[in-house]
Amino acid sequence: MTDAVADTASPVTDEELAALDAHWRAANYLAAGQIYLMGNPLLTEPLRPEHIKPRLLGHWGTSPGLTFVYTHLNRVIKGRGLDAMCVWGPGHGGPAVLAGAWLDGSYAEKYPDVSRDGQGMARLFRQFSFPGGVPSHVAPETPGSIHEGGELGYSLAHGYGAALDNPDLLVACVIGDGEAETGPLAAAWHSNKFLDPVYDGAVLPILHLNGYKIANPTVLARLPEPELDALLRGHGHEPLYVTCEDGDEPEWAHRAMAAAMDTAVERIALIQRAVREEGAAERPRWPLIVLRTPKGWTGPAEVDGLPVAGTWRSHQVPLPAVRENHEHLRQLEVWLRSYRPEELFDADGRPRPPVLACVPDGDRRLGATPHANGGQLLRELPLPPLERYAVAVDKPGGTLHEPTRVLGALLEAVMEATAQRRDFRVVGPDETASNRLQDLYKATSKAWQAEVLPTDENLGRHGRVMEILSEHTCQGWLEGYLLTGRHGLFSSYEAFAHIVDSMVNQHIKWLKSARALPWRAPIASLNYLLTSHVWRQDHNGFSHQDPGFVDHVLNKSPQIVRVYLPPDANTLLSVADHVLRSRDYVNVVVAGKQPCFDWLTLDEARAHCARGAGIWEWAGTETAYGEPQVVLACAGDVPTQEVLAAAQLLRTHLPELAVRVVNVVDMARLMPERVHPHGMPDAEFDALFPPDKPVIFAYHGYPWLIHRLAYRRAVHPQLHVRGYKEEGTTTTPFDMVVRNDLDRYRLVMDVIDRVPGLAVSAAAVRQSMADVRTRHQAWIRQHGTDLPEVADWTWTG
Amino acid sequence: MTDAVADTASPVTDEELAALDAHWRAANYLAAGQIYLMGNPLLTEPLRPEHIKPRLLGHWGTSPGLTFVYTHLNRVIKGRGLDAMCVWGPGHGGPAVLAGAWLDGSYAEKYPDVSRDGQGMARLFRQFSFPGGVPSHVAPETPGSIHEGGELGYSLAHGYGAALDNPDLLVACVIGDGEAETGPLAAAWHSNKFLDPVYDGAVLPILHLNGYKIANPTVLARLPEPELDALLRGHGHEPLYVTCEDGDEPEWAHRAMAAAMDTAVERIALIQRAVREEGAAERPRWPLIVLRTPKGWTGPAEVDGLPVAGTWRSHQVPLPAVRENHEHLRQLEVWLRSYRPEELFDADGRPRPPVLACVPDGDRRLGATPHANGGQLLRELPLPPLERYAVAVDKPGGTLHEPTRVLGALLEAVMEATAQRRDFRVVGPDETASNRLQDLYKATSKAWQAEVLPTDENLGRHGRVMEILSEHTCQGWLEGYLLTGRHGLFSSYEAFAHIVDSMVNQHIKWLKSARALPWRAPIASLNYLLTSHVWRQDHNGFSHQDPGFVDHVLNKSPQIVRVYLPPDANTLLSVADHVLRSRDYVNVVVAGKQPCFDWLTLDEARAHCARGAGIWEWAGTETAYGEPQVVLACAGDVPTQEVLAAAQLLRTHLPELAVRVVNVVDMARLMPERVHPHGMPDAEFDALFPPDKPVIFAYHGYPWLIHRLAYRRAVHPQLHVRGYKEEGTTTTPFDMVVRNDLDRYRLVMDVIDRVPGLAVSAAAVRQSMADVRTRHQAWIRQHGTDLPEVADWTWTG
Repeated sequence: MTDAVADTASPVTDEELAALDAHWRAANYLAAGQIYLMGNPLLTEPLRPEHIKPRLLGHWGTSPGLTFVYTHLNRVIKGRGLDAMCVWGPGHGGPAVLAGAWLDGSYAEKYPDVSRDGQGMARLFRQFSFPGGVPSHVAPETPGSIHEGGELGYSLAHGYGAALDNPDLLVACVIGDGEAETGPLAAAWHSNKFLDPVYDGAVLPILHLNGYKIANPTVLARLPEPELDALLRGHGHEPLYVTCEDGDEPEWAHRAMAAAMDTAVERIALIQRAVREEGAAERPRWPLIVLRTPKGWTGPAEVDGLPVAGTWRSHQVPLPAVRENHEHLRQLEVWLRSYRPEELFDADGRPRPPVLACVPDGDRRLGATPHANGGQLLRELPLPPLERYAVAVDKPGGTLHEPTRVLGALLEAVMEATAQRRDFRVVGPDETASNRLQDLYKATSKAWQAEVLPTDENLGRHGRVMEILSEHTCQGWLEGYLLTGRHGLFSSYEAFAHIVDSMVNQHIKWLKSARALPWRAPIASLNYLLTSHVWRQDHNGFSHQDPGFVDHVLNKSPQIVRVYLPPDANTLLSVADHVLRSRDYVNVVVAGKQPCFDWLTLDEARAHCARGAGIWEWAGTETAYGEPQVVLACAGDVPTQEVLAAAQLLRTHLPELAVRVVNVVDMARLMPERVHPHGMPDAEFDALFPPDKPVIFAYHGYPWLIHRLAYRRAVHPQLHVRGYKEEGTTTTPFDMVVRNDLDRYRLVMDVIDRVPGLAVSAAAVRQSMADVRTRHQAWIRQHGTDLPEVADWTWTG
Repeated sequence: MTDAVADTASPVTDEELAALDAHWRAANYLAAGQIYLMGNPLLTEPLRPEHIKPRLLGHWGTSPGLTFVYTHLNRVIKGRGLDAMCVWGPGHGGPAVLAGAWLDGSYAEKYPDVSRDGQGMARLFRQFSFPGGVPSHVAPETPGSIHEGGELGYSLAHGYGAALDNPDLLVACVIGDGEAETGPLAAAWHSNKFLDPVYDGAVLPILHLNGYKIANPTVLARLPEPELDALLRGHGHEPLYVTCEDGDEPEWAHRAMAAAMDTAVERIALIQRAVREEGAAERPRWPLIVLRTPKGWTGPAEVDGLPVAGTWRSHQVPLPAVRENHEHLRQLEVWLRSYRPEELFDADGRPRPPVLACVPDGDRRLGATPHANGGQLLRELPLPPLERYAVAVDKPGGTLHEPTRVLGALLEAVMEATAQRRDFRVVGPDETASNRLQDLYKATSKAWQAEVLPTDENLGRHGRVMEILSEHTCQGWLEGYLLTGRHGLFSSYEAFAHIVDSMVNQHIKWLKSARALPWRAPIASLNYLLTSHVWRQDHNGFSHQDPGFVDHVLNKSPQIVRVYLPPDANTLLSVADHVLRSRDYVNVVVAGKQPCFDWLTLDEARAHCARGAGIWEWAGTETAYGEPQVVLACAGDVPTQEVLAAAQLLRTHLPELAVRVVNVVDMARLMPERVHPHGMPDAEFDALFPPDKPVIFAYHGYPWLIHRLAYRRAVHPQLHVRGYKEEGTTTTPFDMVVRNDLDRYRLVMDVIDRVPGLAVSAAAVRQSMADVRTRHQAWIRQHGTDLPEVADWTWTG
C-alpha cells in the first residue's frame, strides 16, 4: 500500500471496517460460488465433486475489484444519503454485481424465488451461466444495470449519458484497464467538456487497474505513475490513487478506498456548490479514482505450480478442473472457506447484520435505483401538433423543401417544450447544422464547457444539443440518456452510422432481453436520423457513400428494429412524430437534407405512413386503364424522384401503358407478417404488387436488401431492383444515379425490357432513353453540371 | 507567435526562408485554384465569372496548414536525406496534398497530362472535384498517400502500421483536431507502447490545431495549454509547440516550424541511436509537434461581414457565391493574387526555381515514395508446404482437431520464415492465444515496449504479434502495414469484427479505386480470421453472438470481397494458404477454435476449396439411389456437423431417401457469375442444386444472407435456410443450435416437411425427432449439459 490517500485521516471506525470487510467477503464468496457451485452453497459439508457445476463458466479475475467497489459505494451512499448509480465497465464480472444486488435485497425483489436466504443462494449459484439461467455478464437481467459488460468500451459514455440532466445524481463508472484501451472509451474521456455542473449530475470514473486482459498486461497498468497521472490530468481530472497489493491487510485497502470515496464525493459537492451557488465559471477538474488491485484478488495464488492471482491466468476460471482434479477441489474449498462464510451467513443462509451494515435503503440501493430502470421515470414527450410545421402542398411536386430543415422546426418545438423538464437531447458528430437542424438553436444551444471565444455561435453551458466528433461518444451518451428514462435523437451522416454498428448491436440485444423482463419498464426508442446520404455527397464523394446501416440493423431482432425512408418533408414529420412517441425500438429514419419535392399533404403523409407502403394513384396511369401492366416502386427521397420522373416519361412516351407507382416508407412492410410485426400479409402485398406483373423497384440503398426482405412474396421472380452498387465519387446528383443505374431513363428502359411486348413496340423509346444517358456523359464531362432537362425537371402530372 | 521553439536558434537562412515561403504560397495558390478555377489558371487576365467552376466543392479550411506541413517536410527530407512519408489525417484537404504532389513533380509522373506547366495546372484545377475528375479528399488517386481522408480517425494507426518493420522510415502523421476527437484516433496514441525503436521506424505525429470542425470549436484546441501538454505527455510524447497566428509574418511561422522539425528529427535520431547502438532499454518519449494555425489561414478574413479565416466558416468554400456575386469574385481575385503567382510561376506556368528549392529528389519526394505505393515493395510470402501441417484423416469424422490451432502451426512457420525479412504480422485484440494461435509464440513474441514483469509470458520488444484491446487500432496498424507493402492477418472474435465495419468499408473502397490506377501496384490482401464465433460463446453469451460481419462485407464491391467458411482443419489450411497469397482483396475467413471433426484429407480439402462448393458424396445417399430427393447444404463448421448428423439420422431412419450433402466454403459461389467473379454459372449451380428438389441449407450466420446471394437461382423457391436468428445466451453448444432451429433433429424434420410424400410416411420419424428436442429441454435444465447422444456423437457413415 503506497498511497497518498491512505495517509489521510479516515473517518472509518474499526467496527465499520469490519462490517465493510464482511460485506466484501460475502460478495466475493457469492461471486466465486456462482462460478463453481450447484450444491452445498453454504459449505455446510466438505466440498465434493458433485457440488461443482459440470461446466465452469464466467470471469473471476475482475470480480473481487467490482465487489470492493460495490461495498464502498454502498458505504458512501448510505453514509451521505446519496442518489447514485453505477455503470460497471468490466461487466463480464457479472458474478460480482449479482452478488451485490443479492446482498442489497434488490435481487429478491425482482426475482422472488432467488430470495436472500440459503434457498435463494442455491438458486443464485445454480442459475449463473447455466442454460436457462442468467447471463455471465452484467446484463439487462441484472438489477441496477444500464450497461452490458460483454463488449468493452462504452461504460464512460453511458455514465455521462446517465448523468445529463440529473443534477442530483452521482454516476460511478468503473472502467477496466482492458476497456480503457478501446477507442470508444478513450474518446469518452472528453465528455467532461460537455457536462454541465449546474443541470447535470456528476460522473465519478473509477479506473480499475488490475493489470491484465485475457492474456496480456494492460497498457495503462504498465505506465510509469507520472505518465498515467499526466494522462488523467490531461483528460481533465484530479486523480485519487488507491493501490492495493496482495499482501495488504484488507483493513488497509478499505481505509484507503473509503478515504478516496469520501474525498471524491466531497470534491464533487464542492464543485457543484461553487458553480450552482457561487457562480464559478471555470470548467471543473472532476475527481477520478485510480483503483489498483491484483487481478483475481483473494483468489488462488498458485495453481498447478503457476501464479494465478495477480496475473492474467485468473481472468476466467482460476481452478479449471475442480470436478476431476482433487487438488483443484481442495484449493477451491480452501479458497471459499477463506471468506469465512459461517461468519457471514446464518444457518438459513441469510446475511448476518454486519454484512448488511453498509447497504443503503430502498431506492438508494444500487440494485434498486429507478435511474437504472429508466422506463419508471419516463414521461411522455410533449410533441406539438404537426400542422404547425407541415409544408403546404397544393399539388404534388409543386414546391421544394429541405425535409430535415422542416423537421428542425418540429425539434425546436420539442426542445422548447422540454426547457424546464430537460429530458430531450439531440446528439450528433458536429453535423446538426450541416444536417439542417439549426432551428434547434432557437430553443437551446450546443453543450460546451470549454473555452468560448467571441466568434463562437450557439455554444452554451446549459445546451441540450451535444456535438463531438465521435459517433461512439454520441451513441454512448444517448444510450445512457435513454436508459435512464429520457428522450433523444441521433443525427448522423448516413455512411458513418456504421461507426456505431457494434454499439447498436448491443443496444438492440439489450432491448430484446429487457423486454422479456416484466420488471423493466419500457424506455424511449433510440432514434437515428441518417441524412447527408449516399446520393448527395457532392463535396465528399465515395468515402461518404454507404447506405448499409439499414442492412445491418435489419439483421437484428424484428421486435426491436424499424426502418423508415420518408420521401418528402411531410412524411418525415409524420415518421418523426411516430418514432419520438415509440418505446423500446431502434428506429432508423433516412431522409435527405437537400431540397426535395413535396409530394404529400400532411394528411396524405399521415395516411401513407400509417400504411407504411401504398399506391400513389396520382402518379401512375393504372386508373385510366384498369390493371397495371407494371409497378414502379420506390423507397427513399432520391429514388422516389427518379421513379416519378420515369412515370412522367412513360406517360409521355408510352401513354397507353398502365403504370402503378408504389412508395414504401416502412421497410419492414416488405417482410412477411410472420417475420416482422410490421410485415404485410401476403394478400395485401399481392394487391399492391400483382404477382404476375413486373416490378421495377428503385431503392435508396443496396438493391439486394429488397430481395432479402421480399424473397417469399409471389411477385419475387418479377422483382427487379435498382439501388446503390458502390459506384461513386465526387460528382453531381444526377450522375450518381446514372452511375448506379437508378436514373429515370434507365428505369424506363427497365420497364420496356420487362413488360411483355414492349421490347419491340417501344424500341424507339428505349433508344431515346439510352441516347439521353449518352448525352449526359458528354455534357457532364464538359460542363460539370447536370443536363438542363434534369436540373430543371418538375412533376407535371 | 508565442513559442519556445521559435526562440531557439534556427539554421534557416533568409534565402531559404524566402524559398520555403514561395513553395508554401505556390501550394496555397494551387489549392485555392483547384477549388475555384476552370479557366485563367495563372490569373493572366482579370478574373471573370466564366473562369469559375459551376459547382464549388472541396475543403479549404485545413488546406493551408497541410501545405505548410508539406513545405516543411520537403525541407527536412531534402536537407537531411530522409526516407519519409506522410499520412494526412485531415485528408479532406485534398487540394493541399495534390498541390504538393504537383509541385514535387510526382503528379505528372503518374498522370502525364497533368504536367508541371500551365496546361497541366489548368487540368489540375479543372479535374478537382469535377465529374470524371479526382476526388475532393486525399485518396488512392493521390500520389504519396496511403490514407483516405474522408472518414476521420485512422491516420495515427495507419502511420504506425507504415512504420513497423521499416527501421529507416520516418512517418509523419498529421492529425486534425477534429479527427483527434474520434475514438479510433484517441486509442491509437498508445501505439507508441508497441513501436520497436530497433526494427521499426519512427512516427512523428503533427497535431494540427486549427481550432474548428464543421461548425464547432475542437476540444483539444480549447484546452488550456497545461492540460493539453499533460495529455500529450500522458500519451508518451515530448511535445514541441509551433503557434502561428493570423497577424504573424510568414517568416516567423517558417522559422518556428523549421526549428520544430529539426528538433523532432534530431530527437528521433538520438532515440534510435541510443537504442540501436547503445542498447538503451527505456521506452523512448518520442517527439510530437503541436502546430497551431488559424483555420483557413491566408484565406479571406471576412466575407459578407462575418469573420471567416480563423473560424469554422472557412471549413469548405469560404467565398461560396463567386459566380453570381461580384464582391465575392473580387475577394477571390484579391485572395489568389495575394500569393503573387507571377513570382511563383513563369509565363508557361512552370514553378520558378525558388519554389522548388525545398523539394527533394526522386523517391524521396512525398508524392513518389514507394512506401506509399507498397505493392512496389511487396515480396511473395514464403509459405511452407501445407503437408507439414495437415491433419491425417483416415476416414471422415474419425478425429477431432481445433482448426485454428492447426492454422497456428502454419502461421508459426510463416513467422519463422520471415524472421529476417520481417514483413509479416498478426494483429488481434488480446485474443491470439484465446483463438488458439499460440504456436506463433514459438517463432516470435508479442510486441511490447512498456514495463515487463517476471510473470509475463511471450512479451518481447521485437515481437511481430500485435495485441491491443482495440479492434480499431489493430485494423489501422494492419492496413498501414499492408498498404506499405507487407503481409498480415487479423484474428478477432467474430462478433466484434463489427467494431471495424466502417474501417473495412474505407479499405475496400480504397482497394476498388486503387485497382483502377495502373500506377498502383497490387498489395497483399487484408485477411480476417473470425473465430470464437457465434455458436461457441459458452462463457460470454448473447453479447458475443453476431455473425453479421460477412453480411456487411458482402455489400461491398465484389471485385474486392471474398468470404470463406472452411468446415474443418484441412480446409482452413487450404483457405489460409490461398488468402495469404492473394492480392488486393479483403478476405473474411470464419473458422472455429473448438474441437471439430476432421472431414477431409488435405488433398480433398484442396480440391474442395478450389471448387468452393461441392457434393460430399460419402456423406449422402444419392449414389445408392440415383437422383437426390433432397439436398442438405451447409456452410460453416457447426452447421456442417449438424448437417452430417442429420444425414446420418436420415440414413438410419429413412434409409430409402436419396440425400445429397453439399458443403459451401466460398460464399460467393452462391452468387451468379455476372455479379461476383467467383459466382457459379447457372448450369453448374443447377447441377449441384437440382431446381426441382428441396434444399435445406444450414448456414453459419443470418439465414437470409443465403437468399440474398441465391435469389436468382432456379432452385430458390425450394430453398429453405436455417441459421442464427438472434436467439442466444450463455448456454451449451447444442442448446444454441436448438434455440436457432439449426440442430440435426430440426433439419431432419425440415426434410420430412419438404420432401413430397414424407409428411405422411415419415410422420413417426418426425415425431421421434421432435421428442428428442423436447427431451433436450428437460435434460439441459436439469444437468446443464447436452444430451449424451449429442455430446458423444460421431460420424459412422
